[in-house]
Amino acid sequence: MTTDKFTDVRVGVIGVGVMGHDHVTRITERIKGARVTAVYDFMADTAEKVAAEAGAEVFPSWEEVVVSDQVDAVLIASPGKFHAEQTIACIEAGKPVLCEKPLAMNPDDAYRVVEAEKASGSRYVSLGFMRRFDREYAELHDALRNRELGDLLVLNMKHRNADPHPSFTDSMMVYDSAVHEIDALHYFLDEKVVEVQSIMPRSTRNAPQGLHDPMILLFRTESGIIVTDELYVTTKGGYEVRTEAVGSEGTSTIGMEIGRVTTQKHDGSWGGSVHPDFRPRFLDAYDAEVREWIAAVKNGRNVAERSATAWDGYLTAATCEAAEKALSADGFVPVTVRDHP
Amino acid sequence: MTTDKFTDVRVGVIGVGVMGHDHVTRITERIKGARVTAVYDFMADTAEKVAAEAGAEVFPSWEEVVVSDQVDAVLIASPGKFHAEQTIACIEAGKPVLCEKPLAMNPDDAYRVVEAEKASGSRYVSLGFMRRFDREYAELHDALRNRELGDLLVLNMKHRNADPHPSFTDSMMVYDSAVHEIDALHYFLDEKVVEVQSIMPRSTRNAPQGLHDPMILLFRTESGIIVTDELYVTTKGGYEVRTEAVGSEGTSTIGMEIGRVTTQKHDGSWGGSVHPDFRPRFLDAYDAEVREWIAAVKNGRNVAERSATAWDGYLTAATCEAAEKALSADGFVPVTVRDHP
Amino acid sequence: MTTDKFTDVRVGVIGVGVMGHDHVTRITERIKGARVTAVYDFMADTAEKVAAEAGAEVFPSWEEVVVSDQVDAVLIASPGKFHAEQTIACIEAGKPVLCEKPLAMNPDDAYRVVEAEKASGSRYVSLGFMRRFDREYAELHDALRNRELGDLLVLNMKHRNADPHPSFTDSMMVYDSAVHEIDALHYFLDEKVVEVQSIMPRSTRNAPQGLHDPMILLFRTESGIIVTDELYVTTKGGYEVRTEAVGSEGTSTIGMEIGRVTTQKHDGSWGGSVHPDFRPRFLDAYDAEVREWIAAVKNGRNVAERSATAWDGYLTAATCEAAEKALSADGFVPVTVRDHP
Amino acid sequence: MTTDKFTDVRVGVIGVGVMGHDHVTRITERIKGARVTAVYDFMADTAEKVAAEAGAEVFPSWEEVVVSDQVDAVLIASPGKFHAEQTIACIEAGKPVLCEKPLAMNPDDAYRVVEAEKASGSRYVSLGFMRRFDREYAELHDALRNRELGDLLVLNMKHRNADPHPSFTDSMMVYDSAVHEIDALHYFLDEKVVEVQSIMPRSTRNAPQGLHDPMILLFRTESGIIVTDELYVTTKGGYEVRTEAVGSEGTSTIGMEIGRVTTQKHDGSWGGSVHPDFRPRFLDAYDAEVREWIAAVKNGRNVAERSATAWDGYLTAATCEAAEKALSADGFVPVTVRDHP
Repeated sequence: MTTDKFTDVRVGVIGVGVMGHDHVTRITERIKGARVTAVYDFMADTAEKVAAEAGAEVFPSWEEVVVSDQVDAVLIASPGKFHAEQTIACIEAGKPVLCEKPLAMNPDDAYRVVEAEKASGSRYVSLGFMRRFDREYAELHDALRNRELGDLLVLNMKHRNADPHPSFTDSMMVYDSAVHEIDALHYFLDEKVVEVQSIMPRSTRNAPQGLHDPMILLFRTESGIIVTDELYVTTKGGYEVRTEAVGSEGTSTIGMEIGRVTTQKHDGSWGGSVHPDFRPRFLDAYDAEVREWIAAVKNGRNVAERSATAWDGYLTAATCEAAEKALSADGFVPVTVRDHP
Repeated sequence: MTTDKFTDVRVGVIGVGVMGHDHVTRITERIKGARVTAVYDFMADTAEKVAAEAGAEVFPSWEEVVVSDQVDAVLIASPGKFHAEQTIACIEAGKPVLCEKPLAMNPDDAYRVVEAEKASGSRYVSLGFMRRFDREYAELHDALRNRELGDLLVLNMKHRNADPHPSFTDSMMVYDSAVHEIDALHYFLDEKVVEVQSIMPRSTRNAPQGLHDPMILLFRTESGIIVTDELYVTTKGGYEVRTEAVGSEGTSTIGMEIGRVTTQKHDGSWGGSVHPDFRPRFLDAYDAEVREWIAAVKNGRNVAERSATAWDGYLTAATCEAAEKALSADGFVPVTVRDHP
Repeated sequence: MTTDKFTDVRVGVIGVGVMGHDHVTRITERIKGARVTAVYDFMADTAEKVAAEAGAEVFPSWEEVVVSDQVDAVLIASPGKFHAEQTIACIEAGKPVLCEKPLAMNPDDAYRVVEAEKASGSRYVSLGFMRRFDREYAELHDALRNRELGDLLVLNMKHRNADPHPSFTDSMMVYDSAVHEIDALHYFLDEKVVEVQSIMPRSTRNAPQGLHDPMILLFRTESGIIVTDELYVTTKGGYEVRTEAVGSEGTSTIGMEIGRVTTQKHDGSWGGSVHPDFRPRFLDAYDAEVREWIAAVKNGRNVAERSATAWDGYLTAATCEAAEKALSADGFVPVTVRDHP
Repeated sequence: MTTDKFTDVRVGVIGVGVMGHDHVTRITERIKGARVTAVYDFMADTAEKVAAEAGAEVFPSWEEVVVSDQVDAVLIASPGKFHAEQTIACIEAGKPVLCEKPLAMNPDDAYRVVEAEKASGSRYVSLGFMRRFDREYAELHDALRNRELGDLLVLNMKHRNADPHPSFTDSMMVYDSAVHEIDALHYFLDEKVVEVQSIMPRSTRNAPQGLHDPMILLFRTESGIIVTDELYVTTKGGYEVRTEAVGSEGTSTIGMEIGRVTTQKHDGSWGGSVHPDFRPRFLDAYDAEVREWIAAVKNGRNVAERSATAWDGYLTAATCEAAEKALSADGFVPVTVRDHP
């Protein structure tokens, strides 16, 4: 679709749990040039409540959202197992789609989305990896593209949360946490991962039963760059996401939160605070992600330039699959990647 | 007015030079729930061009913008000398108005706005001091209100720009630069300034002819708090705005930009960069200012809770007047403040 | 004297209260090439105790220390009112002398020391302003000398302590605290102060009765540089000594203590600690001061290159005198400085 | 030996190349209570020159240094292959010895030193790992001992140099660079390493031919703590040595050099500089190491409390041996450690 800026893009939202609800609120309250017109959730009550807030209509099935002539573009925030099928339906309906991560639960399903989009002859798919829309990520991305650090050699990433859900598992550490660094490394590096290894340090006693926390994943890329990802989700502290890029001509770090500094009385300490939650850290990035998606839809490009694509989603799925195998393997596990169709 | 969230507030914009144009773009592209319907500028060509971008109508006079039934609220970005009169017209028309700073060119005119609003029996006036909408300013404001630092004793403020306009004068140093710290101190302290002194260091050779740059202004408040404001607009570096609050139980600093850190090859240096312009620093604050104004207009409050009011504008005008006198005086110059009507 | 490095410089120490005792311990335990051979204190017991620790002899009067042939060089740490007379005696005895600050209680007495040294035809006097021997101070000094910041325009200094002695007075704020910044500005700037003003903010309720704390002193130098000195000795926090140099081509800050960073569990805070005492901050500087003095004595130069001289001591005394007058004056008070003999 | 503080410890120095010469200068110029009386080097000219500077005697063999009655304590800075034999000779002569790292070229030789000291019934051996005497290392060590971070889970270490010698090899990366982190982890953790893995990222094109640079070593300890050591010796930048400790209750970082901050004109940049060489970084630590050794010798303890011992030297040798094997192995290589005799 190509519209002038005074015509709203009408968005259909599939799945309005916490994340989908956030997106509906975002579009309704903050994203100019778009409005939510259609909502589907398998919980009918939830769908009603969220639709009312947005002035949208509740649809009886996601399939009807996709094909509705009240819907110009689709945002998918349903459970991950439905993503591939729903995204393919959007492609077939010729509707731009912003799908929350992951694109699919396994590489084969993700690859089918890539093939479907290829077959359509157009681009339709944006994948919701919001870090690509964070200002610091973008600065580091540009610095690497401009070779400000020379050849990149090592990326050190850290991903820390205060507290996970009690049912958090090692597998979720890969698919819910590391998945962000896996997409980020593709964003930064523009090359594939060839193998993955897991290293399990002693776990914190604060971790949920059975969870290896912290956990270190090591990725080796085609050109030999090593990416270390330290995942630690029960820090009891706050949300910290850092990346240090180590190049032949310099290093660069993002995510050092040294903003407001306070010195306090009682103990001669100085310091600041870390947000316990990830949403404040990436709130602007989420807004930018949706804003740029809407702008792309308006001008007929369908996909924002910075956004992760279906192919990125496939690479991430393939890498996650190897990472999950690496959880119970010794040494490096190869990543199997098919050719780009 | 009180509207639901799906009805746009229709904004009339008076003055669409650089700042007014920015606001029109902001409302058109980023502020949900509002659209620009009316534009006036004494440069007819400029008005036409900006109106076209916004899909708005050009009006032949600002008076007609104010009273138009196509206009729910007015944003004033005309030259400062028109602000008081135009704001009073909005009050009389019963329209919420967001007026760019200053409220008036002198305390008497500003006081007339305060009186007009008082006489109206309602609140209509928001003043465009965007720093109140900056996240760090808000955090420090809240910390001071919560007495996290005990009694406030000293505020050290710095205001640095890379390069001023070649025609920049000492008087503009007060009315264009220090005016932001003067409003900020009222925001932080909730008390009046009783006297002002200027201190003129040796000037940088890079400054425009005749400009005292840097310049230090000292403000003393009712309770004896001293506010130092170092203004330095020809740093040839970047935009830096810092505030250190010194209290009986601790100190707190905002505006330390220590984000991305890079170590580079050739000289073993580490560091980052400072934006040369003030707009990136306060872009989010400008957006928040207009967003919260629109929200307040929608819900019938007219004025955002955090916004500077007409009375704040009067206090700033009175303090600026004394500061300008202090430029050519020895020692402290008293600030004359009338009673709140 | 000129000695090889294997012969100890024999030091006589006059006054072994806290500071003098520290120096005796320093020389005995850490300063190679020197030993304390003679000690005098008007408290005979203290003298005995300290002398025993150092293996030194107790002398019955300071005059005998000065002229003793067991003493190659003299370190004066007696009460300030004796400094001028004792220093002159050392000059007359042809002995290198390291005198703790101040050189004298008033400019006239300090000037007499300058004249005495001039009359002797040699250099003998080092003054104990240890900050000149601090690594960061030396780096900033060198940067200013090399004009890395262009023309210096403003120096912003802060001097904060956790807690003063309960009998601390405004006058001591000048003579015990600001005196360090007054010497430091002469060290950094190599030009004289022409006038001083005091600004008294509201005092912290934690301050001793009658003390203005914090206090701001403003100094203007010959070339028009403004030096601001914020003194705040009852912060209840820690020791912080910062200097920001503002030049025509850049700014530079020393004294930002951002060393070890800790994130802790309970509140998501990050930060570090500030030392409550000044001694850890300047311990290395004190050692360097005495070490370089001993080295200078050994090689016949008598005075370390970096050390404050009698003339520096006179300038500081003259500036302190004006600063003390400024405590009870409105506006700037001129500093009277005689010509260098 | 037990001496009063006025009697110098007479030190014999074996090997006066760069490091040995530094130690001779240190003792002669900065370490109170000690002097160098005997020097041996297989380069007779070097020995003569250094001995002259120190006022010491040149000995014809290292054996004669060890047994000389002019020598109370021995400092070994000869090539590493002689260390074990020379240290054992000191033990047999009943002389305290400070041996530069490594203690031996292989675990067996190091173990022989441990056994010799055990057989002697006394403690004689200090090992020259100076980082234990660095202020930040000591703070982190104490924080870990006091369980300020709860259980330690991960240590992330980085070791960066500007430029290596052109003949630097992978093996030297272990024995000359990583050896410092290997000792440091024993210092911090007080437990043994059980296995080591190497990870080889793509190398910088600036590295000497054949060198894997950067290189990552992973160590797992008895309790499952993972230590990552990123070694990168051709950064072309400066010397950076950082450690981040990650515990169950918090994290702590040492080695962040954010001291003097400069903003400069031309490009709006801010930042500071990193020393290219390791000596300025650890100068104070070297001094403290020798100072505390001398103090221990004086009071009859022979070994400074903080110093690495022969047993530490053995553990480091055993861990280095495994690390070197790991350079050409896949996955983890076990560390073989014999029982403490």
